[in-house]
Amino acid sequence: MERVNFVAQKKGQGRKGNDKEFVKEITPRSVDYSQWYIDVILKAQMMDYSPVKGFMAIRPAGYAIWEKIQELLDRRFKETGHQNAYFPLLIPKSLLEKEAAHVEGFAPEVAWVTRGGSEILAEPLLVRPTSEAIINDFYSRWVQSWRDLPILINQWCSVVRWEKSTKPFLRTSEFLWQEGHTVHRTEEEAQEETLKMLGVYKEFLETEMAIPVIDGLKTDRERFAGALRTYTVEALMSDGRALQAGTSHNLGQHFARVFDITFLDKDDQLKHAWTTSWGLSTRTIGALIMVHGDDRGLVLPPRMAPIQAVIVPIFRKGDSDRVLEAVQELAEELKAVSRVKLDDRDEYSPGWKFNDWEMRGIPIRIEMGPRDLDNGQVVLARRDTGEKETIARSEVVKRIPVLLEQIQEDMFQKAVKFRDDNTRSGDNYEEFKNLMETDRGFFMASWCGSDDCEVKVKDETKATIRCIPFGSEIEHEKCLVCDEKATKVACFARNY
Amino acid sequence: MERVNFVAQKKGQGRKGNDKEFVKEITPRSVDYSQWYIDVILKAQMMDYSPVKGFMAIRPAGYAIWEKIQELLDRRFKETGHQNAYFPLLIPKSLLEKEAAHVEGFAPEVAWVTRGGSEILAEPLLVRPTSEAIINDFYSRWVQSWRDLPILINQWCSVVRWEKSTKPFLRTSEFLWQEGHTVHRTEEEAQEETLKMLGVYKEFLETEMAIPVIDGLKTDRERFAGALRTYTVEALMSDGRALQAGTSHNLGQHFARVFDITFLDKDDQLKHAWTTSWGLSTRTIGALIMVHGDDRGLVLPPRMAPIQAVIVPIFRKGDSDRVLEAVQELAEELKAVSRVKLDDRDEYSPGWKFNDWEMRGIPIRIEMGPRDLDNGQVVLARRDTGEKETIARSEVVKRIPVLLEQIQEDMFQKAVKFRDDNTRSGDNYEEFKNLMETDRGFFMASWCGSDDCEVKVKDETKATIRCIPFGSEIEHEKCLVCDEKATKVACFARNY
Repeated sequence: MERVNFVAQKKGQGRKGNDKEFVKEITPRSVDYSQWYIDVILKAQMMDYSPVKGFMAIRPAGYAIWEKIQELLDRRFKETGHQNAYFPLLIPKSLLEKEAAHVEGFAPEVAWVTRGGSEILAEPLLVRPTSEAIINDFYSRWVQSWRDLPILINQWCSVVRWEKSTKPFLRTSEFLWQEGHTVHRTEEEAQEETLKMLGVYKEFLETEMAIPVIDGLKTDRERFAGALRTYTVEALMSDGRALQAGTSHNLGQHFARVFDITFLDKDDQLKHAWTTSWGLSTRTIGALIMVHGDDRGLVLPPRMAPIQAVIVPIFRKGDSDRVLEAVQELAEELKAVSRVKLDDRDEYSPGWKFNDWEMRGIPIRIEMGPRDLDNGQVVLARRDTGEKETIARSEVVKRIPVLLEQIQEDMFQKAVKFRDDNTRSGDNYEEFKNLMETDRGFFMASWCGSDDCEVKVKDETKATIRCIPFGSEIEHEKCLVCDEKATKVACFARNY
Repeated sequence: MERVNFVAQKKGQGRKGNDKEFVKEITPRSVDYSQWYIDVILKAQMMDYSPVKGFMAIRPAGYAIWEKIQELLDRRFKETGHQNAYFPLLIPKSLLEKEAAHVEGFAPEVAWVTRGGSEILAEPLLVRPTSEAIINDFYSRWVQSWRDLPILINQWCSVVRWEKSTKPFLRTSEFLWQEGHTVHRTEEEAQEETLKMLGVYKEFLETEMAIPVIDGLKTDRERFAGALRTYTVEALMSDGRALQAGTSHNLGQHFARVFDITFLDKDDQLKHAWTTSWGLSTRTIGALIMVHGDDRGLVLPPRMAPIQAVIVPIFRKGDSDRVLEAVQELAEELKAVSRVKLDDRDEYSPGWKFNDWEMRGIPIRIEMGPRDLDNGQVVLARRDTGEKETIARSEVVKRIPVLLEQIQEDMFQKAVKFRDDNTRSGDNYEEFKNLMETDRGFFMASWCGSDDCEVKVKDETKATIRCIPFGSEIEHEKCLVCDEKATKVACFARNY
């Protein structure tokens, strides 16, 4: 991550007030998709670079989306019986080292605390990259009897993973997430929990974020360090790359053995428990931007939008009082049915405001000027399609919630169509290789199940197996890559 | 903090099922107040010690209270125009060092990150002990014009301060808090914001947490490192010690000058902005325990209680089906008017449940057995007073919300009475010294304003000036300590 972008925003440059400047500053997706993404984030003031490489501030416009994610996911966690808790940020080195695969996976990207105050620490502490080690250490004391099970706990927090190459929201050295950590009596219960929470992610992403996903099992190579099975939900960005939007791990008895989580069962036998963990992070904000955004900037699905409708009054000289009064009244009425904002700032022109709110992705713009007042009407403009409609003032309060639902549904269907149009299948490796260089997208293919073929694909195409999709059936007998018999369907894609 | 308590909880010890064991395990306040506090926290499973000295896990029973605090405070922040954001956890050493008083105040208690992955960092990073330095660095870029002001941002996060001696919730090496950081055009606006947010804390603590506070100005010695003026709200614990429950700082132009937060004003002049910061932390959970708790455990004011009423069915052998059906129906009805829980576990006896929920501080217990069913009645028991009432089943849904409000009000009035009974004034230094050794409490006295007298009091009595209370009038002409003329009223107390 370079500081160029933020330097360009330094005092005196990119100043406000210049009517159309904003949108022109966003690089079109077709010119440079990656730059478009950065432009949208900086212009919409969602994030800003910190003096420490790879670290960022999430600004109010970005954080408000994270708050919506928290609210809507947390509700689902509680409905499925989970409680929140908070575990220490700093973890002793020896705890991480208890689990071999886990330490191997995480040690290279750990930030180490070696001094506290003036004291050099006898044992270095790591800033949590994930919390299995510290949480399971607590669980080993909290679990004694079958009566203590299940433990269904979630934590909202930040984690640090020292990244070499970073990109706002998608890969940063610190990010926000939730991590669920549960303990169960039986293998069946743990597996049920693992799939239940994957289902919560899928339903949340599709219903609230309007992001369709493919759900399935990760391959051994791609599974979480220390897990028995890792499940994933994979979304497709508008540049044809996949993004892993959430994962759910069945950890088997692996962590329970390492951290000594045992319980006296109903039959008076001391047994090892079964654990799971699952997480979703601020990356999904990156997915939201890339699935729905366009060349004018952000496009927010109504359920995720901190502001769902913005009212922009159009003042005419000497005739602004009655317009102001009318929009204030409308804003008051709309509060009951939507998250509405009245933009009555007089230091900006209506044209500037139109562009600004469009760039920020607000689903509906409501325009109201002297002529509208005279005609007893208002103008509504949809952010997703650009469509405008003029409706009677008396219909607005009824119309807005309906239109918001319509936009939500249309955005989801549009994303589904894009995903389906860009999900291909076949048995021709050359065709597949060519596709990964051009349109990309998901590619469903038969696979022999070998590590060798998986690695070969990655080396030659940069595509990886995103998952073994649920409910997929083998179409071609032979593996896409080698001549062996196929045992699975793999969903290939290049990914973020 | 020692690990003795948690070791005593290791497998096999303190096991469940023994009816009356729980309450006996809580040390009475009169025997050892400090041990009572720890006992309540461990037995009610609010917190647990981590392998790293001074760090703790906040368990679901404790975290649910923090979630209530977040919900109720955050609503107030938004109503007063604030937005949330998130700033990096790690701060470059050079940023902290920009402000001399600030670095002097915080450097001794900082945790230092010196390695990232395999790389030794050229410049050490500190885990944030507070975020003025990093946030003001961002603000220097975000503020350019008077149009960008005010900036009204709050952050919910954890902070680390390396503490030598720690106590659950009150002083831990990591704690959760919110920190507001605002930027203003004028001195008046900054002062107004500082006092407004102190007012939000006071109103929140009194209305929701039922904790009465004294508000006022900190002395120069006690003010925040780098602040112009620090304001505080001080609560009185049931052992007569004060606890600082929230602070609000007017930072003047001090940080704006150091971090170069300037803006082009309406008159086209480049000016330094005015900033404030204000915070409230998980310490307030400690205050909640110590203000309201009793020898049976926690007592939660209804508005803070994650569970407001618990239904305990009393099963009689061969007659449990109709009881279960009746309590399920009642629970369903009560959901609409309160946060209710049905405890229908059959591995515990009603007596065990009574003790357990009492210890956890749930405001109302609802008992329902076969005899109650026959008589068309239920029994309600108040946690705060122990009072029981038998009412008609048909009245319950109407009665519960009224009773919850009554308990909230009674708990607040009880705390006010305790505070008032333990707020004394006078001009006799020996009497004051004696009081600080015995009943403690708040002591309002005239003070000359000198550092010498403030230090002398601290050395001789361990009491400090908690604040210069708002609206207080000088009663005695001479300073409590020396013979000089008094210029202020000081509120003295020993504190946490």
